[in-house]
Amino acid sequence: MRADWVAKRQGQSNVSQMHYARQGVITEEMDYVAKRENLPVDLIRDEVARGRMIIPANINHTNLEPMCIGIASKCKVNANIGASPNSSEINEELAKLQQAVKYGADTVMDLSTGGGNLDEIRTAIIKASPVPIGTVPIYQALESVHGNMENLTANDFLHIIEKHAQQGVDYMTIHAGILIEHLPLVKNRITGIVSRGGGILARWMLHHHKQNPLYTHFDDIIEIFKRYDVSFSLGDSLRPGCTHDASDEAQLAELKTLGQLTRRAWEHDVQVMVEGPGHVPMDQIEFNVKKQMEECSEAPFYVLGPLVTDIAPGYDHITSAIGAAMAGWYGTAMLCYVTPKEHLGLPDAEDVRNGLIAYKIAAHAADIARHRPGARDRDDELSHARYNFDWEKQFELSLDPERAREYHDETLPADIYKTAEFCSMCGPKFCPMQTKVDADALTELEKYLASTAAKEELAKA
Amino acid sequence: MRADWVAKRQGQSNVSQMHYARQGVITEEMDYVAKRENLPVDLIRDEVARGRMIIPANINHTNLEPMCIGIASKCKVNANIGASPNSSEINEELAKLQQAVKYGADTVMDLSTGGGNLDEIRTAIIKASPVPIGTVPIYQALESVHGNMENLTANDFLHIIEKHAQQGVDYMTIHAGILIEHLPLVKNRITGIVSRGGGILARWMLHHHKQNPLYTHFDDIIEIFKRYDVSFSLGDSLRPGCTHDASDEAQLAELKTLGQLTRRAWEHDVQVMVEGPGHVPMDQIEFNVKKQMEECSEAPFYVLGPLVTDIAPGYDHITSAIGAAMAGWYGTAMLCYVTPKEHLGLPDAEDVRNGLIAYKIAAHAADIARHRPGARDRDDELSHARYNFDWEKQFELSLDPERAREYHDETLPADIYKTAEFCSMCGPKFCPMQTKVDADALTELEKYLASTAAKEELAKA
Repeated sequence: MRADWVAKRQGQSNVSQMHYARQGVITEEMDYVAKRENLPVDLIRDEVARGRMIIPANINHTNLEPMCIGIASKCKVNANIGASPNSSEINEELAKLQQAVKYGADTVMDLSTGGGNLDEIRTAIIKASPVPIGTVPIYQALESVHGNMENLTANDFLHIIEKHAQQGVDYMTIHAGILIEHLPLVKNRITGIVSRGGGILARWMLHHHKQNPLYTHFDDIIEIFKRYDVSFSLGDSLRPGCTHDASDEAQLAELKTLGQLTRRAWEHDVQVMVEGPGHVPMDQIEFNVKKQMEECSEAPFYVLGPLVTDIAPGYDHITSAIGAAMAGWYGTAMLCYVTPKEHLGLPDAEDVRNGLIAYKIAAHAADIARHRPGARDRDDELSHARYNFDWEKQFELSLDPERAREYHDETLPADIYKTAEFCSMCGPKFCPMQTKVDADALTELEKYLASTAAKEELAKA
Repeated sequence: MRADWVAKRQGQSNVSQMHYARQGVITEEMDYVAKRENLPVDLIRDEVARGRMIIPANINHTNLEPMCIGIASKCKVNANIGASPNSSEINEELAKLQQAVKYGADTVMDLSTGGGNLDEIRTAIIKASPVPIGTVPIYQALESVHGNMENLTANDFLHIIEKHAQQGVDYMTIHAGILIEHLPLVKNRITGIVSRGGGILARWMLHHHKQNPLYTHFDDIIEIFKRYDVSFSLGDSLRPGCTHDASDEAQLAELKTLGQLTRRAWEHDVQVMVEGPGHVPMDQIEFNVKKQMEECSEAPFYVLGPLVTDIAPGYDHITSAIGAAMAGWYGTAMLCYVTPKEHLGLPDAEDVRNGLIAYKIAAHAADIARHRPGARDRDDELSHARYNFDWEKQFELSLDPERAREYHDETLPADIYKTAEFCSMCGPKFCPMQTKVDADALTELEKYLASTAAKEELAKA
């Protein structure tokens, strides 16, 4: 679909959606996105121009179905996939991609760190993906110097970044905000630095006593991103890795730098979103969202969770869906999912499913709480079906129809129960949905209540 | 343990904890609870006297390990078990009870509606339970008139209530707040009345054109409760059954009545908590909690979820854990769990486990967000273990150690990996917890940063 759209942009020095938006141009991508979101296309263009919305759409990802990320549109969900040296291979990753798209991932990040040919896996994923693909190029940069972090140079980074851009990656996590001056601020943390990319840069800076090369070469990255329309996903290297470390000086110092970098990218019409924590107690979530808006001039916020407690490994899709739902309500644009395997192992396809549904719930609940027009329509439709014992329709309207059906059928599998006015939870006589208050009976009751007899009777009680 | 404690209270006309508290007496139960909560016993007594905390402890439930429910103490979690006519029998229910207690249920409600001898099941559960047991006597009252709702009389209710009290039930859901005047208010709802007990009473009132017998005989129930120290759990018959119906006139009208009934029970020193919704969008949760405090003079609030969206049957432990965590943060005293089978079927033991862990997460996250002293200690300890790759300790400190271990071992089962500085998620080279920022290196860095050379170097960047 996009092949024709991007063909005519060939040779232009800046092909970013923001660049066009700022010239008043409405691109095909903006048009497509406006229809998907049921929003006026002018609003889409204005939000992209303002930097409050991004349309991550590398011109080399031609099979992309464009989508947008920003507070004016529905809250989005990202799923991470990717091979690790301990497990996974290309077909498994493609299966995870399919699983992610099937269950509603709005974007997918390929976080492969090994376990196969990284370029091959990435190219296959981009080719197969209708949703934007994000990457963290520093992982491959480290592989390119055989894991010897101290040997990394700015050119190694730029080389890999350009390669990802050519391959069609739509957005990249760039850890440019962690500065050498920030490092002493992590002293009092329990879990130090828990961003993989940020940790690599921290060790590099400690070793060389030099400034973060992604910061010093930020303009070079901007130049690459312009030519392909890659969006920045500014990495939060100093995000808290536990609730104890949340909202501390280190995190907030980096956030300030991320704001400066946001505005620097915007000077070149390059799209930006900003990554956020992590592990945050519930009472600090609103502060975190508002602070990001303030420091980063309302560039879309993209948070990982946050987990609202640290004591539930095995259930961190839940600990983090709580934080994610709240973050979305407060105005976060995209939620990065967490699977039940977080902190424990590499997720498989079933984990991807469970993580994604938890996050679709969070994002949808956020849309409802923000009163987005029409956000509750599907809920109301399902509630009607529930009240009318239309089981098939309930399943169909569910975020995961197969699961809903499976659970229902576990105790009452026969077809006849698909029209039954009960399920095994309460049995045939106690289903609360059977309490149909008849309209005629209510009218009669109202007449009675208006009578003198009723008033006397009820006054006695 | 309690046999001796209650023996000396025999023959007293009011044996409620509130009655003793108001006389300035510190009971053994208050003492026990104070130690469990690590709170001053005077505070416990004062809160119980004030009605802001309850200690549900029927004098006939002698193997109970007393606990408290109230805003001054940790947020609690209730698990529902119970047979339905379609499935379940006594051993299965006892297995669910054990499962619930194992995974941290603070109280358990037996909601059996059939499928066996209700008295036998209930007695067995009470005998086996160290936690308070709650029931909804109206279900058995309906069974006693063979399901013919219109035949129910106030005496049928009182008879069953007294029986449950004798058996040792610690708190009972009493649907006394739904009045005949409220019924016309449900007209514009999608799902009408979704409380099982409330629905029975609504149909009774519609049929007889008479006031709710539990309301007209509320003082008789008070008299029974006094003699056994049963706590009221005032049922919210008009709770919303979908997000569309949340916070409507019907719900709020009943809440006002629940407040009046609370104060009526308090006049007789009978303990009260108040049940709440249900299905509520995130942006209405704080309102619901504050409104209950206002209407019910701060009697402990006990909410079911609430679910923050209706579109995820099969995952309603998650849709509702989001709402429950927030409700707990805003000051709700106890959260009634919801299992993945909600709306679909009767939960089995594994569902009880999944529902409970989701709610332990919610309650704990609420305690952290409310800054309860020591609430985050376990999180910090686990975070230290995580940073130090002490896998065994991480598992041990988890809400569900078996699950955490199982997930970890799925990819790296060998013993050697229990001391490995990585898991399969990121592999041996990319685990972010490996980024140990060495204290000496940091000191050296700080010296460098203070130097003129550094200042010149960094100014260039």
